[in-house]
Amino acid sequence: FKNPKIAVIAGDGIGKEVMPEGVRALEVANSKFGIGMQFDHFDFASCDYYQKHGKMMPDNWFETLMQYDAIFFGAVGMPNIIPDHVSLWGSLIQFRRGFDQYVNLRPVRLLPGVPCPLANRKPGDIDFFVVRENTEGEYSSVGGKMFPDTDREFVVQESVFTRYGVDRILKYAYDLAQSRPKKHLTSATKSNGIAITMPYWDERVEAMAKHYADVKTDKYHIDILTAQFVMNPDRFDVVVASNLFGDILSDLGPACTGTIAVAPSGSINPEGKFPSLFEPVHGSAPDIYGKMIANPIGQIWSGSMMLDHLGYPEAGKAIFTAIEKVLAAGPKNSPLTPDLGGTAKTDDLGKAIAAAI
Amino acid sequence: FKNPKIAVIAGDGIGKEVMPEGVRALEVANSKFGIGMQFDHFDFASCDYYQKHGKMMPDNWFETLMQYDAIFFGAVGMPNIIPDHVSLWGSLIQFRRGFDQYVNLRPVRLLPGVPCPLANRKPGDIDFFVVRENTEGEYSSVGGKMFPDTDREFVVQESVFTRYGVDRILKYAYDLAQSRPKKHLTSATKSNGIAITMPYWDERVEAMAKHYADVKTDKYHIDILTAQFVMNPDRFDVVVASNLFGDILSDLGPACTGTIAVAPSGSINPEGKFPSLFEPVHGSAPDIYGKMIANPIGQIWSGSMMLDHLGYPEAGKAIFTAIEKVLAAGPKNSPLTPDLGGTAKTDDLGKAIAAAI
Ligand SMILES: CC(C)[C@H](C(=O)O)[C@@H](O)C(=O)O
Ligand SMILES: CC(C)[C@H](C(=O)O)[C@@H](O)C(=O)O
Repeated sequence: FKNPKIAVIAGDGIGKEVMPEGVRALEVANSKFGIGMQFDHFDFASCDYYQKHGKMMPDNWFETLMQYDAIFFGAVGMPNIIPDHVSLWGSLIQFRRGFDQYVNLRPVRLLPGVPCPLANRKPGDIDFFVVRENTEGEYSSVGGKMFPDTDREFVVQESVFTRYGVDRILKYAYDLAQSRPKKHLTSATKSNGIAITMPYWDERVEAMAKHYADVKTDKYHIDILTAQFVMNPDRFDVVVASNLFGDILSDLGPACTGTIAVAPSGSINPEGKFPSLFEPVHGSAPDIYGKMIANPIGQIWSGSMMLDHLGYPEAGKAIFTAIEKVLAAGPKNSPLTPDLGGTAKTDDLGKAIAAAI
Repeated sequence: FKNPKIAVIAGDGIGKEVMPEGVRALEVANSKFGIGMQFDHFDFASCDYYQKHGKMMPDNWFETLMQYDAIFFGAVGMPNIIPDHVSLWGSLIQFRRGFDQYVNLRPVRLLPGVPCPLANRKPGDIDFFVVRENTEGEYSSVGGKMFPDTDREFVVQESVFTRYGVDRILKYAYDLAQSRPKKHLTSATKSNGIAITMPYWDERVEAMAKHYADVKTDKYHIDILTAQFVMNPDRFDVVVASNLFGDILSDLGPACTGTIAVAPSGSINPEGKFPSLFEPVHGSAPDIYGKMIANPIGQIWSGSMMLDHLGYPEAGKAIFTAIEKVLAAGPKNSPLTPDLGGTAKTDDLGKAIAAAI
């Protein structure tokens, strides 16, 4: 991507606080590496926008954003104002489907200086990827309610797994595993209980594994897999999962490495036919919004992932190394936010990282 | 229940190793407290049975087991011989539905002497219940495959949530929360993503909460809830969850308290119209079967829960106290299994607990 065009959407809550720090880091990398990135800011995909317009996005959101090479996203959701399923299905989920961002890539890494809730783990011990299917599975729009407001009331919702959808995410995950030293892929399943869709998932994993003889494959049911994340996080390399299981594992993994505040994510269309989206794993966190105590590292690291994706791995690495450096210096020498044991504000930490790039 | 009749089903794998220890503890309590329990052993609901008869259970399993006051169960599953979805849906899931065991009750407690994977947690810090819906939700039998063996192949599976099913599990969970000092109920949801069934779950929680003004209610999306189990497990009191979410949380919770090997569970029909079932949370663990190193505490503690349920809380307490005592003594003074840092065999630990009752 030459002179990449970036659509910046801060969204809601702490998205608005961490986004300026994400952009700050990107701008430093931009001039340092002569990338020629351009940023345009948008106010839609937010509950503010909804309150003004009665919908989360303008009707031409698709055409508008198609003109960009990537979307740099903050967070969305203000459940006290608008129910989450309305705000999310009106924005983020639209992007994932509309732009066929079928890969959700989420690194889980224990960084220096981040207090770890697990006993006896140090940086380097935990370093894996969650590869989450991002367009189908349990997140479906098929279903509904019958016999409303009576004792017979019930709701149903279909999980949908297509061969097309399952195979392409498995292929992406196997390719990633093959490119890494450990060459180890773990499949999250639940075929003992969710006995229609999940045995199918297992079947497709078995079929795909045949094409990757050099990759070691194992599978765990999701219940025991969450237990293994806590007990043996060093065991994992690439974990591939359905939409829901990937959602769970990519919050749990970062929690095991200290805080989900630093975790980044990419919703990727690997073929580049549509813009990919990069956003922190944390949400809009209305409870801490307004205090400027939100940790901006998830946003900044997401910017680093975006640069990798756009073809600027050196610049991406420079941002990531700056994050590590500032974290490693500890709360005495770096302006860290309260969740990291410091007393700094969001922008102090953002500036320190920008300066270290 | 006077002179309760117990159906004992060891099942597969380490189920066969830990079951004798569960029964040993129960027999001691039986004579010490003059309960008059009778035990009958059954070989069905096992893969051995399947290999002989081509099915997991005889056709009259329902009538046979209806003659008992409770089922004391080991574990089922030998995935190398029979796919899990065949063995499980042919046994355990049949019991849960056939006997309308709609409550799955799973205590999560950090016990003395159990090595905890979380930093800085001590016994007493973690003490809560997962109340899992056990008959409907994501574990459904409705769905299937279309366009098999073609590129258009797909599978669908319906999640089903009925008002009847949701309200009764919520009521059970609220009653339990109300009976505890903290009076705190946490609902596991995912209404931002699973946007048909889960908003309905939230609605029913809100409606039920109105009848329990003295209980503090909060809700977390399942992704961040798993993160909270790791970061703030002391925050929880009663956690109520759908079938799948409860399955996940009741493996993750015990992992956060050291090992799922000690965790017990009850699949309960609260009205007593059908027999309830008590089993360890761990499965048949084919990988360690045959070495007699399996930890029998999950099985023994399940026996203690069964005595509570049958109306013998003193006897239940005596078994639980014996478990705590043997654990607290540590691997130097107690014959603990390898997962607890000892070198003892399954039956050594079982005998030590029986002796301590
Ligand atoms: C074995 C399996 C079907 C079962 C479940 O998912 O319910 C188990 O994990 C459990 O928690 O009892
Ligand atoms: C906000 C929510 C709909 C979303 C999801 O479940 O996908 C979030 O949790 C995530 O992980 O990106």
